[in-house]
Amino acid sequence: MRIDLNSDLAEGFGRWELGDDDALLGVVTSANVACGFHAGDPGVIRRACARAAAGNVSVGAQVGYRDLAGFGRRFIDVPPRELTDEVLYQLAALDGLARVEGTAVRYVKPHGALYNAIVRHEEQAAAVVAAVTAYDPRLAVLGLPGSSFLSRAAEAGLTTYREAFADRAYTPEGTLVSRREPGAVLHDPELIARRCLRIAGGEPIEAIDGSEITVAADSICVHGDSPGAVAIAETVRDRLRDAGIDLAPFAAGGAR
Amino acid sequence: MRIDLNSDLAEGFGRWELGDDDALLGVVTSANVACGFHAGDPGVIRRACARAAAGNVSVGAQVGYRDLAGFGRRFIDVPPRELTDEVLYQLAALDGLARVEGTAVRYVKPHGALYNAIVRHEEQAAAVVAAVTAYDPRLAVLGLPGSSFLSRAAEAGLTTYREAFADRAYTPEGTLVSRREPGAVLHDPELIARRCLRIAGGEPIEAIDGSEITVAADSICVHGDSPGAVAIAETVRDRLRDAGIDLAPFAAGGAR
Amino acid sequence: MRIDLNSDLAEGFGRWELGDDDALLGVVTSANVACGFHAGDPGVIRRACARAAAGNVSVGAQVGYRDLAGFGRRFIDVPPRELTDEVLYQLAALDGLARVEGTAVRYVKPHGALYNAIVRHEEQAAAVVAAVTAYDPRLAVLGLPGSSFLSRAAEAGLTTYREAFADRAYTPEGTLVSRREPGAVLHDPELIARRCLRIAGGEPIEAIDGSEITVAADSICVHGDSPGAVAIAETVRDRLRDAGIDLAPFAAGGAR
Amino acid sequence: MRIDLNSDLAEGFGRWELGDDDALLGVVTSANVACGFHAGDPGVIRRACARAAAGNVSVGAQVGYRDLAGFGRRFIDVPPRELTDEVLYQLAALDGLARVEGTAVRYVKPHGALYNAIVRHEEQAAAVVAAVTAYDPRLAVLGLPGSSFLSRAAEAGLTTYREAFADRAYTPEGTLVSRREPGAVLHDPELIARRCLRIAGGEPIEAIDGSEITVAADSICVHGDSPGAVAIAETVRDRLRDAGIDLAPFAAGGAR
Repeated sequence: MRIDLNSDLAEGFGRWELGDDDALLGVVTSANVACGFHAGDPGVIRRACARAAAGNVSVGAQVGYRDLAGFGRRFIDVPPRELTDEVLYQLAALDGLARVEGTAVRYVKPHGALYNAIVRHEEQAAAVVAAVTAYDPRLAVLGLPGSSFLSRAAEAGLTTYREAFADRAYTPEGTLVSRREPGAVLHDPELIARRCLRIAGGEPIEAIDGSEITVAADSICVHGDSPGAVAIAETVRDRLRDAGIDLAPFAAGGAR
Repeated sequence: MRIDLNSDLAEGFGRWELGDDDALLGVVTSANVACGFHAGDPGVIRRACARAAAGNVSVGAQVGYRDLAGFGRRFIDVPPRELTDEVLYQLAALDGLARVEGTAVRYVKPHGALYNAIVRHEEQAAAVVAAVTAYDPRLAVLGLPGSSFLSRAAEAGLTTYREAFADRAYTPEGTLVSRREPGAVLHDPELIARRCLRIAGGEPIEAIDGSEITVAADSICVHGDSPGAVAIAETVRDRLRDAGIDLAPFAAGGAR
Repeated sequence: MRIDLNSDLAEGFGRWELGDDDALLGVVTSANVACGFHAGDPGVIRRACARAAAGNVSVGAQVGYRDLAGFGRRFIDVPPRELTDEVLYQLAALDGLARVEGTAVRYVKPHGALYNAIVRHEEQAAAVVAAVTAYDPRLAVLGLPGSSFLSRAAEAGLTTYREAFADRAYTPEGTLVSRREPGAVLHDPELIARRCLRIAGGEPIEAIDGSEITVAADSICVHGDSPGAVAIAETVRDRLRDAGIDLAPFAAGGAR
Repeated sequence: MRIDLNSDLAEGFGRWELGDDDALLGVVTSANVACGFHAGDPGVIRRACARAAAGNVSVGAQVGYRDLAGFGRRFIDVPPRELTDEVLYQLAALDGLARVEGTAVRYVKPHGALYNAIVRHEEQAAAVVAAVTAYDPRLAVLGLPGSSFLSRAAEAGLTTYREAFADRAYTPEGTLVSRREPGAVLHDPELIARRCLRIAGGEPIEAIDGSEITVAADSICVHGDSPGAVAIAETVRDRLRDAGIDLAPFAAGGAR
């Protein structure tokens, strides 16, 4: 059995720091590196790439809306053609910094409000897929199972990977409970680790109403910017390893 | 005899347009494409690259300070390491968009206050050179003859090209007369074209005090954003062609 | 009979110019001055205020989403509390510059996507109203008749004014035809002027399907950034004056 | 005896937090509130103003260069006229938010690289003074004793206050030792508090070379964004109070 752990990284900007990139890069197997539009200055991006390269962590492009003030967490009604060009720009900028550090972008995982929008927003989903395809059709994409994004990416011939969230409650339908609802975010490292074990093993987990659902996943997201993030990530990794589950990037490999 | 004509392009941003990219891309042989930090959104950049590719115009990275409000025309005391990372980011973003359009960045010409700063500012000159070298040492650089930038680029093993300004007055020492001085900017297309002919032929031109100076150049800059810019560029091109001078990019070639 | 003519002004940013502020300030009676979030740097704002003060043109705050790249024309799902604070910030900044130039903000007219959103988006409409009320309840608001914005502003005790669009086609229901539809934007100065005369006189105008509708308005918007904008504005003004209609700001007065 | 304690506040931006505004506002008597150009979104600014109003802490405008990426710590060669307009814009925006919260801006203290530049840069010093004078000549300014800024402010009729730095080493000439030098920043709360006591009492303190210098000050700056910042500020306050020194804003008062 094998699973990937991913986390959002390089989300500082200039004087402002966010999360502990060094510690998380010692735990995860895939790094969703911010690309400068919602967070991430060139310096923090480059350092994250260098550490990812040194640790054999796979680099993904965490592309987002151009919105530093909102950290990419606010839906923006960007026309699809503009969105394609903005995603291309971010992807290329990150890939260049990654290559200078001896690695390369392997996959694309949109950030925040863009991630959420393209679960259903067909035009924006297609716009992101168009950017990835134009840049390099060998790139993989990581997203929510059942999303427009993954469907369109598969139609376009991209390799798709499914993501689960270790620290988030699920509805009985298998979607995430909104952060505005009580109980939406889990904090207990051991509880989160137990859910990861079940997801990695293909076993059902408990939804917020107590029913059981099965969440198929190639990668589990551990959040990097909450208090206790590193401790949670380490516990998840340790419990998965203890259970004999292989932690490895879903999208690795040599030079693209 | 042969010379290159270069111009600054893709300097709009969102709703704001600047210059006539289409017309200038029908005249010049090298396009200094803005990279998004002083001007240039991903859409305008991509369209300029597409037209440059279609017209066999060589694409250069017009990297600048991160300063939309000042259009990159104000010196910023950026620490060298940050400047290297910011230049890398811009260079990579542009190169990605250029490649999607079937061309690639061939050279780097810094913009505005950065261009002027690295005539003498050794640390910033070295920082820009470090970015180019790290990204791809086969890239050329275009700059002012005698500048720290060209000296350091040559020391680093980069191919360097020298630039002259068709529409600017020169001091007897061969430097540009400040824009704040009367007579610093020339507007007569035929006069500008005559100076270009002399520069291309290796003959001296008149300095602002009436003395003669020789300006060695591989490329002549024609400005794109002033009134009459296109007419000036067309006159320069026509007079050069009439005189049998070959207009060709200094840095061309197939895939890097 | 009396009507107000308003136009969007100070929509340049740094090196980028947009529209002819000087010419329009010689025509309109109310100036919707950009506040720096979608367009407008402090210098262009201040100069527009100075000219408005000199010409007895009423100054309004054209508040918008924080979106220079999109010129405020893309809906952003800003949480209401943040939107209130962002509107307050813009309103205060403009008012300060206006006061230094001897005038003051008299009214608020939201810009672009924010204007359109708060026709129906109750939370964002309330957020804008909350900002105006908190800043100064003596300020007026200008908006679309029947919009949530005007309703909520009236409920909050603000003075509301209704706006019509001289150069836009209307549906039979009295809403604007989308810019994406053919015939949505009118360009003929004399046709536009005739429609203004009818609006000012309370007479019906022709909707896009040929039916007649009555558009009640305290102010007519003439756009400033299209080709021919100044000629249209001047024709409208001249025809209204010729017909004996008094052109005067809806919100004027001495120091607030 | 009486002294003021000031600190930089509201220096987060969107998702990014910096320093502990709540804790510091329980200690200092003057709050240098960021104005949005180097840091500070409208929400964090407004909350700092609300708490300052509730705690009778005097609000100052911490105006800076437009440089989020550099946190205002990089000199920018802004033309004086533009700088005046940018300072006015920031000052007015903050003042509006402060007034909504029942207080008002009492003084101006430039931030970071602008603070350092106008120690000697006459044009930029004059530009900042011009903005303050134009906005409200009753505003005070806080700056380095002997700086161009304080000299020009005094010449313009503004009330000036002198600042000392509790946690920074001084040269024998009474200027600050550069942060790049060893020993430039002090970290021991008790040592810092002892220096504050001597400064408040008009007694000499030890310069970095062991000699004694006298630092005349109306206000002592305690930094807010370093680890241990709150503990240092609390110790300074407690030791000053224990010594019977009155802590009070240099610029207080009712409505301007």
